[in-house]
Amino acid sequence: MAEELIGNCLVAQSGGPTAVINASLAGVVTEALNHECIEEVYGGMNGILGILNEEMIDLAEESQQNIRALRHTPASALGSCRFKLKRTQDFDRVLQVFEAHNIRYFFYIGGNDSQDSADKISKLAQERNYPLRVIGIPKTIDNDLVATDHCPGYGSVIKYISTLVREVSKDNEGMGQHDLVYILEVMGRNTGWIAAGASLAKFRDDPSSPPHLIYLPEVPFSVDKYLEDVSRVLSKEKYCFVVVGEGLVDENHNYISTSSSTSDAFGHSQLGGIGEYLCSLVEERMGIKARAAKLGTTQRSAVHCSSLTDNNEAFMAGQAAVKAAVEGHTDMMVTLVRGEGDTYKCETGLAPLGEIANGVKLLPKNWIGDDGVSMNHSFVRYAQPLIQGEVEVPFAHGLPVFAKLRAKRIEKLLPSHELG
Amino acid sequence: MAEELIGNCLVAQSGGPTAVINASLAGVVTEALNHECIEEVYGGMNGILGILNEEMIDLAEESQQNIRALRHTPASALGSCRFKLKRTQDFDRVLQVFEAHNIRYFFYIGGNDSQDSADKISKLAQERNYPLRVIGIPKTIDNDLVATDHCPGYGSVIKYISTLVREVSKDNEGMGQHDLVYILEVMGRNTGWIAAGASLAKFRDDPSSPPHLIYLPEVPFSVDKYLEDVSRVLSKEKYCFVVVGEGLVDENHNYISTSSSTSDAFGHSQLGGIGEYLCSLVEERMGIKARAAKLGTTQRSAVHCSSLTDNNEAFMAGQAAVKAAVEGHTDMMVTLVRGEGDTYKCETGLAPLGEIANGVKLLPKNWIGDDGVSMNHSFVRYAQPLIQGEVEVPFAHGLPVFAKLRAKRIEKLLPSHELG
Repeated sequence: MAEELIGNCLVAQSGGPTAVINASLAGVVTEALNHECIEEVYGGMNGILGILNEEMIDLAEESQQNIRALRHTPASALGSCRFKLKRTQDFDRVLQVFEAHNIRYFFYIGGNDSQDSADKISKLAQERNYPLRVIGIPKTIDNDLVATDHCPGYGSVIKYISTLVREVSKDNEGMGQHDLVYILEVMGRNTGWIAAGASLAKFRDDPSSPPHLIYLPEVPFSVDKYLEDVSRVLSKEKYCFVVVGEGLVDENHNYISTSSSTSDAFGHSQLGGIGEYLCSLVEERMGIKARAAKLGTTQRSAVHCSSLTDNNEAFMAGQAAVKAAVEGHTDMMVTLVRGEGDTYKCETGLAPLGEIANGVKLLPKNWIGDDGVSMNHSFVRYAQPLIQGEVEVPFAHGLPVFAKLRAKRIEKLLPSHELG
Repeated sequence: MAEELIGNCLVAQSGGPTAVINASLAGVVTEALNHECIEEVYGGMNGILGILNEEMIDLAEESQQNIRALRHTPASALGSCRFKLKRTQDFDRVLQVFEAHNIRYFFYIGGNDSQDSADKISKLAQERNYPLRVIGIPKTIDNDLVATDHCPGYGSVIKYISTLVREVSKDNEGMGQHDLVYILEVMGRNTGWIAAGASLAKFRDDPSSPPHLIYLPEVPFSVDKYLEDVSRVLSKEKYCFVVVGEGLVDENHNYISTSSSTSDAFGHSQLGGIGEYLCSLVEERMGIKARAAKLGTTQRSAVHCSSLTDNNEAFMAGQAAVKAAVEGHTDMMVTLVRGEGDTYKCETGLAPLGEIANGVKLLPKNWIGDDGVSMNHSFVRYAQPLIQGEVEVPFAHGLPVFAKLRAKRIEKLLPSHELG
């Protein structure tokens, strides 16, 4: 047992939000209140930015109802940022703020950039002999953090997308139309985890059920193969349901669609992203009607159709972070560890922050079908448990109700800091 | 009381689907079984196309479970079509099929094109002295049918979109970013009813809450005004939430975006629809980051977040159609009639099919704010009741479960018919 460290705790959120990032926050707050060595529970506003600006709120002042409501409130309740800590004076400032407010426990909920920041802060504190325990909490819809079986946020995004695939395919079937190509563009800049997740919508006893084609950033895109794939599906089915990850690349690893306002790798003007591009290819080269939808950030906020398993695990990860820190661990990220055996079980573990910060977990190649456009049983076995159960979101007057934090500010104790 | 007409009934669905079109179907089937004058209950496959091809199923053979499950199954369970009855031989064929199968009651669930077809079939039957009662059942997410207070399908689509606005705005707020423009493209080719519905997401006690700008086909679009609108919002708010209806027109009534693969009215190539176009305007002219999402047909199938009020009314409209026909009415469409007073009440009425067929109900100009980009209290009072209550959709293994009809085919009795 490590020496007892008495002081305040600070939790912050960073990077793109998910449907369950606030469930992890609720887990931290709930657990922190169980430990007497943790005196105050502060929330840093807008990730590392709020820490630099000494903008923190008193989470212990929030009502129990509010903390509970965080579990069904999408996006970062504390605010997030994409600011990357680089300058020496910014790192120094973080420790000054921590010292001024007697922060001894720091919990950072985020993806690999955030875990990298947490790692550097932790190492600096050690150098300076400032007793601090730093634990990262994984969060990303992209599911691309190493060392953890999966990431909180992933199960919810693929549950929502698979639900939409089930619904829209009813629409496509119902239209009684032959030769329609339907394209659903989903997120995933570097990995195909999200697009792959749409394969859960396929009925296992009906190989002809949608989605018919899944295009992943892991498989270099070829226009000719794409048109052949679509033809093959349409020779057997009334319509062709395509799911595409936004980060599709060609064989030279260049993005097919780099941004909403630039030209694509093929010299076409490219306003609408990869989904619209795949649409135009089918319409122009095959003369077949195509339609695209681009879910954009709606997919990562869709708490109204999120996974209870994911939500519970996100909460558990928040609790586990606090427990680990109180036990004396530091410089670690909470991981989700899948149990052995056929029945899905999930526990938490710990992995060094440095390991997370520098890794990206790609979709295993051997989970992709030989045709390059489908996911095999290994993927389904992996992903299916993550979407189980439905989060109950309270509705009032016809719309979902989210937590609105009281957000009582902590008094600033330091002169203001100039951001780089 | 009209003379009792004994025979079979036929129900069919047409046009683009909604989240509740099958609730109307369930209403027809449930009510039809209550009346002894109705002997068999048939479903026509793929709208008028299935009738021409004598493709019908026996709905009385479906299990009670299946009929109940229709209430939470999106899109047309019987299949739909966009085929328009024009040729004399096709109209003749419809009556031949009706006569061969002793169809005396015909219920057509659809928008104004479908009500037009129903009207013509009804008039032809009268000319030929073929006793037939024809009742239309309104259905369209576009909410543009005349004579009815609102249309089944509308409440659900705007509930879903408003839910997404609430969720995504949490995302935008949480990102702690200044000067972001978020654009949500929704359906609505000719009217702005759907885009207007997104205004329900605004908190009435917080005028600065999103959506900040709503662009409607009813208000001619001007690029300069748009850029001014965005600037005005960004001078006060951290981000600007825009909702745009796909059918936006310029002052000469030309679509700003005519299709996914043509040029727009301003000569820009236009792959991504109006949302991506508004995105590029902000990025190119103002140098401000913009993001767009295009919900496409996902919005009209989203039964997982649909309105219970809408669902109940769609079911009621189906029942009312059967009751009206049995009572002797024909050549009518069921309408939804809003009761007087502050508490929302809705009953059904009837209006002549001919009246529906030729009308389009535009969004009243005096419900649009003076700024042209907001909806006033009159609209909110109209639309708010339509999104109340949540439809419970059963999930199994993490995904929604829909009705799968047994679809027992009725034996064909006629030689096949050649379609025009």
